Amino acid sequence: MPVPLFGGGEVNVTIPERSGTAFRLKTGDTLVVVDPRGCQVADLLAFNADDMDEVISSGRTLDYAETIRLTAGHKLYSNRSRVMLDITDDTVGVHDFLLTPCSYDTFHHFYPDLPPHRGCFGNLAAALEPYGVTPDRIPVAFNCFMNVPVDGTTGRLSVLPPISKAGDTITFRAAMDLVIGLTACSAPASNGGSFKPIEYRIEPA
Amino acid sequence: MPVPLFGGGEVNVTIPERSGTAFRLKTGDTLVVVDPRGCQVADLLAFNADDMDEVISSGRTLDYAETIRLTAGHKLYSNRSRVMLDITDDTVGVHDFLLTPCSYDTFHHFYPDLPPHRGCFGNLAAALEPYGVTPDRIPVAFNCFMNVPVDGTTGRLSVLPPISKAGDTITFRAAMDLVIGLTACSAPASNGGSFKPIEYRIEPA
Repeated sequence: MPVPLFGGGEVNVTIPERSGTAFRLKTGDTLVVVDPRGCQVADLLAFNADDMDEVISSGRTLDYAETIRLTAGHKLYSNRSRVMLDITDDTVGVHDFLLTPCSYDTFHHFYPDLPPHRGCFGNLAAALEPYGVTPDRIPVAFNCFMNVPVDGTTGRLSVLPPISKAGDTITFRAAMDLVIGLTACSAPASNGGSFKPIEYRIEPA
Repeated sequence: MPVPLFGGGEVNVTIPERSGTAFRLKTGDTLVVVDPRGCQVADLLAFNADDMDEVISSGRTLDYAETIRLTAGHKLYSNRSRVMLDITDDTVGVHDFLLTPCSYDTFHHFYPDLPPHRGCFGNLAAALEPYGVTPDRIPVAFNCFMNVPVDGTTGRLSVLPPISKAGDTITFRAAMDLVIGLTACSAPASNGGSFKPIEYRIEPA
């Protein structure tokens, strides 16, 4: 488990392309998710570190925020209506909280001519297994930098390349002790057809 | 548990206002959800009757459907990417699959001046408890007749009165043996400020 071993939090940890990781985040800690090359997506999950049955909830969050366009100033809620993460800074402003992480099955569906990949779903399942999370417990992720516009008239949604540029970030502050799952996206449509790393750093409270 | 005891399925079962129920639906059975007076919402959940860890997934469904406006011809998927329900008929065309069922906490948030109600979340939790479902396992519901337009430009979502008229229906066919949770909505904003029953009937395969 690639836990940052340095102090101070100035150094970014790299999540290699098409992989994922999991780590603890303490109350008050800041998590900065970096798109180092631009146009890449990072799926983020959060669990209450003291009770892993409490998990990030798209439905609660969208209900409270009254928007699908979540950015600095918004809060990400759990299935128990408690704040898990505050978004404190965001240099992009376009993220997705509608879609579940791509999996072997979704790869087969959307990319029938490509070799299937376990996707962010499989990567999150593997990274979170040591914390006792089973695949069935992986909900809709907060997909950092993912660009999923919705047509207000027809309801149609599209998965477009992210608008994030190299060095763009989204920053969260933990409102409780958390286990975070985080990936570098594996799905061609989500990241403009190329696979790139994601970086993150933890700035202690 | 109000299971229909009649044969043939011609008689509707009533879910009283601000309450919920749960029942089994066999593969191939048809479930007709009826809005008997119009402008009312019914939150629907589905679990694999043989393995309750498999549950309806908004994220998978929206991903496969590529729209948030689900209607006849669309399929509702599980967290394992399997079809649980086919929508076979729909006289309304406007339903929601973004928001979790209202709970005591969301009532407190949205209606601070009203007596809190356990909402569809609490009603579903109570109805599904005999099937071994704990409250933490209640995901985003398919909210029949719920009218939640999304502004494509700003991302803002609104909860408006349903456009359903008295007698409108949405019809599902079960693609596996299911346990269904179903409610008559408890939240003023979702149903135009009045509380009304919902009806359903099961037409065996």
